[in-house]
Amino acid sequence: MECPIANALDEVGDGWSLLLLRNAFLGFRFFAEFEGNLGIPASTLTRRLDALCKRGLLQRRRYETHPPRDEYVLTEKGLELLPVLLALAKWGSRWLAPPQGPALVPVDTATGEPLDPVLVDARTKKELRPGHVALSAGPGASKRTRDGLAVPRVLGRS
Amino acid sequence: MECPIANALDEVGDGWSLLLLRNAFLGFRFFAEFEGNLGIPASTLTRRLDALCKRGLLQRRRYETHPPRDEYVLTEKGLELLPVLLALAKWGSRWLAPPQGPALVPVDTATGEPLDPVLVDARTKKELRPGHVALSAGPGASKRTRDGLAVPRVLGRS
Repeated sequence: MECPIANALDEVGDGWSLLLLRNAFLGFRFFAEFEGNLGIPASTLTRRLDALCKRGLLQRRRYETHPPRDEYVLTEKGLELLPVLLALAKWGSRWLAPPQGPALVPVDTATGEPLDPVLVDARTKKELRPGHVALSAGPGASKRTRDGLAVPRVLGRS
Repeated sequence: MECPIANALDEVGDGWSLLLLRNAFLGFRFFAEFEGNLGIPASTLTRRLDALCKRGLLQRRRYETHPPRDEYVLTEKGLELLPVLLALAKWGSRWLAPPQGPALVPVDTATGEPLDPVLVDARTKKELRPGHVALSAGPGASKRTRDGLAVPRVLGRS
């Protein structure tokens, strides 16, 4: 698959990967912490944590040998999903929160000030809105994709 | 559920919602366009498009009455998922692209310049990195959540 969204969803779009990673971002490290929060059978949780380790999103570290005990920590690949999780959180807070407002709000660690996460271009700092972003063929594109995107495809133009 | 990430994943985290919405962002409007791209049975596609309409992410519009023909367009709720999709695309391009580089790159519709999507705070324009964002209790938080977040929980501190 050439589409990076499809590839990303293939890797973490299964409905539980991002929930486990959310918990890792919240500071969960130990099997029992994940288990207590998610209420899924231990065998299922083992399989899912193993899958995240195999895909390089979490790293298993042995912190005790007698008896053997592992902890799970986010890798760089996992940590770089923070924008995805924060963008999902903003959308969930905007569209799915109770009438009195969201239960959780993001704040700046240093100042405690509320944060409003927006996606911008790193260089111009302009917000990336529907109609203002297009997809163009990159270096890894097949000839078919290059031909199909001779004119870049605008995202979300109505 | 109080967690906006869990709520968002409950709404669009099923592995196909975001793929269909991606196609809608790419300009797909007609049943046959979605069908041709995704290669899933028509009955499955009908069910999934119906679900996205029911959740208010797509709107069904009748554009022809004899014979009846519908098109599917993104609602505001759907359009506001663009940051999630672009953040996923950036992550997929960084971690899952072939060695020669990503097949698709985002560009500015107006200038054609490549874009580098980063999540920042709207006010300070500071990038939201692991360790610099915490979760605090919002107006919709239960007493239990408020007590649990008396000290905001830092996301992704190692």
